Amino acid sequence: MPIEERHFEDYHEGAVYEYGDVSVTDDEIIAFARDFDPQPFHVDLAYARTGPFGGLVASGFHTNALFMRLFADHFLSHVASLGSPGFGGLRWTVPVRAGDQRRLRTTILASRPSASKPDRGLVRTRGEMLVGDDIVMSLIITNFLRCRPMDNP
Amino acid sequence: MPIEERHFEDYHEGAVYEYGDVSVTDDEIIAFARDFDPQPFHVDLAYARTGPFGGLVASGFHTNALFMRLFADHFLSHVASLGSPGFGGLRWTVPVRAGDQRRLRTTILASRPSASKPDRGLVRTRGEMLVGDDIVMSLIITNFLRCRPMDNP
Repeated sequence: MPIEERHFEDYHEGAVYEYGDVSVTDDEIIAFARDFDPQPFHVDLAYARTGPFGGLVASGFHTNALFMRLFADHFLSHVASLGSPGFGGLRWTVPVRAGDQRRLRTTILASRPSASKPDRGLVRTRGEMLVGDDIVMSLIITNFLRCRPMDNP
Repeated sequence: MPIEERHFEDYHEGAVYEYGDVSVTDDEIIAFARDFDPQPFHVDLAYARTGPFGGLVASGFHTNALFMRLFADHFLSHVASLGSPGFGGLRWTVPVRAGDQRRLRTTILASRPSASKPDRGLVRTRGEMLVGDDIVMSLIITNFLRCRPMDNP
């Protein structure tokens, strides 16, 4: 189902998709970190070489934001998204560096109509960012999606 | 203990601190969302007025990044931070709008030496973003902190 027509009913438990790639440069890593996470191993190339990661690595919050970019572009309906109450189980398992080609894998864990609001459903999804075969980040996010209008007169 | 001298030993279970403020403009909300979360209620003022939040709201990932800015500026040691394996229990409870003055509250839930690496400890912290008396975002994050050098000859 094209993302411009996708509604709650199109999110099926067990479905697995893969999207991408996206990558970032050292300059983008540094610019994001200067705004939001100015730790030396995210903003200072020379320090970073001697630091705990042996080189410049992206802020985990930058990795999370790039996850959202792929999730919003490719997975989340462009017409029926009603936001999210949050996510859990966020793991940063491999530091992400400039030039890494990151992909997104989504696995729908659960999909159920809202108990209180008949116009929408809840979809729970495992999102994983991949670089090669390594999972570099994972989380489990809940999203509210509007039902298809004809089911909802 | 000044943030430039803070080490693992300075993070005490039960300690509660509050820092801030930080706020964003509509332009900053839109710029972040164009890069990372281009859903219409984050990038399109006119649409947002009729959308699920009745106005433009910041991407939750923007709120998370601003959390990290306050956390890195005020809470996390500037000399002993060794990164984080992740966080859990992220809740977005109130949408955040331009001009909201956000504060950060941190509560140290646990602090223990690493079982495998004697040069560091783990600190688990509840982080809450506040606007007025409302908690607008919360999470529980784990950080690795280096021990003070003299304890570690």
